Amino acid sequence: MFKAEVKSETLKGVVNIISTLVDEVKFTVGSEGISLKAVDPAHVAMIELRMEAGAFESFSASDTEIGVDLDKIKDVLKLAGSGDVISMEQDEDHGRLVFRIGNITRRMNLVDTSSMSDPKVPQLDIQSSILVSAGELQKGIRAAETVSDHIALTADADFFELSCEGDTDSANLRLEASMLERLDVPGRVRSLFPLDYFSNLIKAVPADTKVEIRLDNDYPVKIKFPLADGNGGVDYLLAPRIESD
Amino acid sequence: MFKAEVKSETLKGVVNIISTLVDEVKFTVGSEGISLKAVDPAHVAMIELRMEAGAFESFSASDTEIGVDLDKIKDVLKLAGSGDVISMEQDEDHGRLVFRIGNITRRMNLVDTSSMSDPKVPQLDIQSSILVSAGELQKGIRAAETVSDHIALTADADFFELSCEGDTDSANLRLEASMLERLDVPGRVRSLFPLDYFSNLIKAVPADTKVEIRLDNDYPVKIKFPLADGNGGVDYLLAPRIESD
Amino acid sequence: MFKAEVKSETLKGVVNIISTLVDEVKFTVGSEGISLKAVDPAHVAMIELRMEAGAFESFSASDTEIGVDLDKIKDVLKLAGSGDVISMEQDEDHGRLVFRIGNITRRMNLVDTSSMSDPKVPQLDIQSSILVSAGELQKGIRAAETVSDHIALTADADFFELSCEGDTDSANLRLEASMLERLDVPGRVRSLFPLDYFSNLIKAVPADTKVEIRLDNDYPVKIKFPLADGNGGVDYLLAPRIESD
Repeated sequence: MFKAEVKSETLKGVVNIISTLVDEVKFTVGSEGISLKAVDPAHVAMIELRMEAGAFESFSASDTEIGVDLDKIKDVLKLAGSGDVISMEQDEDHGRLVFRIGNITRRMNLVDTSSMSDPKVPQLDIQSSILVSAGELQKGIRAAETVSDHIALTADADFFELSCEGDTDSANLRLEASMLERLDVPGRVRSLFPLDYFSNLIKAVPADTKVEIRLDNDYPVKIKFPLADGNGGVDYLLAPRIESD
Repeated sequence: MFKAEVKSETLKGVVNIISTLVDEVKFTVGSEGISLKAVDPAHVAMIELRMEAGAFESFSASDTEIGVDLDKIKDVLKLAGSGDVISMEQDEDHGRLVFRIGNITRRMNLVDTSSMSDPKVPQLDIQSSILVSAGELQKGIRAAETVSDHIALTADADFFELSCEGDTDSANLRLEASMLERLDVPGRVRSLFPLDYFSNLIKAVPADTKVEIRLDNDYPVKIKFPLADGNGGVDYLLAPRIESD
Repeated sequence: MFKAEVKSETLKGVVNIISTLVDEVKFTVGSEGISLKAVDPAHVAMIELRMEAGAFESFSASDTEIGVDLDKIKDVLKLAGSGDVISMEQDEDHGRLVFRIGNITRRMNLVDTSSMSDPKVPQLDIQSSILVSAGELQKGIRAAETVSDHIALTADADFFELSCEGDTDSANLRLEASMLERLDVPGRVRSLFPLDYFSNLIKAVPADTKVEIRLDNDYPVKIKFPLADGNGGVDYLLAPRIESD
């Protein structure tokens, strides 16, 4: 059983983030909230996402699984104005999810979750931690996009840098410690990542959200940030690319 | 003879509505105003439209016919800013219509009307009448568009509903009597219509315009609404689709 | 050596104008400012452009040449917000130009200028001079665009006119002397021009800029206007088309 009301902005934020990785997703529903784990088809990135009951305007659920097509949820979100509350209810008899926005009722078949297994999340112990606003990262990404398909993240005791080397051009965004919310880096670390994955995720995060970057040498980066005013959160893991030079 | 001045917004509203059905149109001009009757090439819908002299800033005409290419009128409208008055004058010697907007003069050849006969308008006696704002209908249309190519209109003594059934999904907008301007329905009526025709028309109507829907069972729907602050109006007739279930 | 700071709006305005003619350009740099001369590949139009040191927030240079790809400069401009100052510096050791906007550094290879010779600018003595705002010209261009590929400029002692004749339609914008900043025309002059060149240039000029048009009979038109609050300027020469009627 699952029945909840949620602000359209909250649902939109969550869907934007998940849909950077997958088209269909299985939500694990419990009395305390909902969560999901997903990897993209190429197994380059993994997302864990939690929305606690407090992220919803109202929430009532028992243990169940709900498989949804994210494009359909986006269609529903287009029917909601800013500030609208969307009501969602599982119709177990018909295998449907029922959305209500004002006078509109939108029913959709659920996606079969039997073949969707939860990915195993690797336990990584990464020392370096940088806390930076998504807006700053978005600036660095825009500069990188015209230069190369890869982006290097580098941090040392006194700076954090996004950089990008093309055949003829280069771009970088350098943030000194004073421009960061936190810079806790024991020694220089650097890894290279696919720009599209990094860019799609960071662009889906509101510019004023503080994002934690946990970085090591030629190692996956862990990107953590809160959702729904702290009533939820995302842990995102992105595999590095091999630096060829 | 035809010479008139009209607010660009008024002309734009009229052109938007007609161009949902046809590309070229013959206006019948008289001393009291202008009118047109047109059917689309597939004979699915018919429009009657009237603009009285009061819909114009100035109006002076004797009986004549004017055939125009609506895309060209749209080009002219792009030259006018909000609040601009457009002057139109028939140049009978050259078979042209001359538009003036500020210092700009735009002359265009008229379309030959000799082969454009007026369609015969069927007299339909439909009892049920619903009065609803175009904005509410537009909300229901947006919900329906991702679900199916058809839309069902249903009314009973206490509600009016737009609904749509796809293979896996459904959408509906249900309006209780209290949400309607008028609901005068003796008994349940329902017909199915092609969504694109209904959608194109209703989206061309300003959201705050009150639209009258005259509905019967598996029968054409008549859609009536005023133009130009009541100095004109539209009668639109849309053929039903056969419901297969 | 070249090192300068410039408002993003100023650089954007300059790049928009040059890129209507060429993709790559050679700037001639000196201690007093920068300049360029360029013709389009079809040799239909020629541009001379000057930016004096006063057009920059800071400027320090000795004689050099800098070849740039304008699309790359446009990419850099997208990284700057309104009001941002862009710092530019030539890196002679690496043949690069280095842009800095806030924390972002963007390095790009310079274009080889050895094969880019300066076009010879013809000395034309044209009597008629019309001074008109770019915004008025833009209105006439919009009216002309749906009618024909050519635009005629005509001036006489008491008016200046943009006009356009298509097979079925015509458009014209007529400006009386009272609507012009200056109308200094000894006798009627008229030439025909390719609309796309004229349109692309005039649309790249801010609407409130006063543009001087020097016009003769079946002769190139000279279009002059200031840049960067008068700390620079453009001389543009456009070849006429032969009028066939």
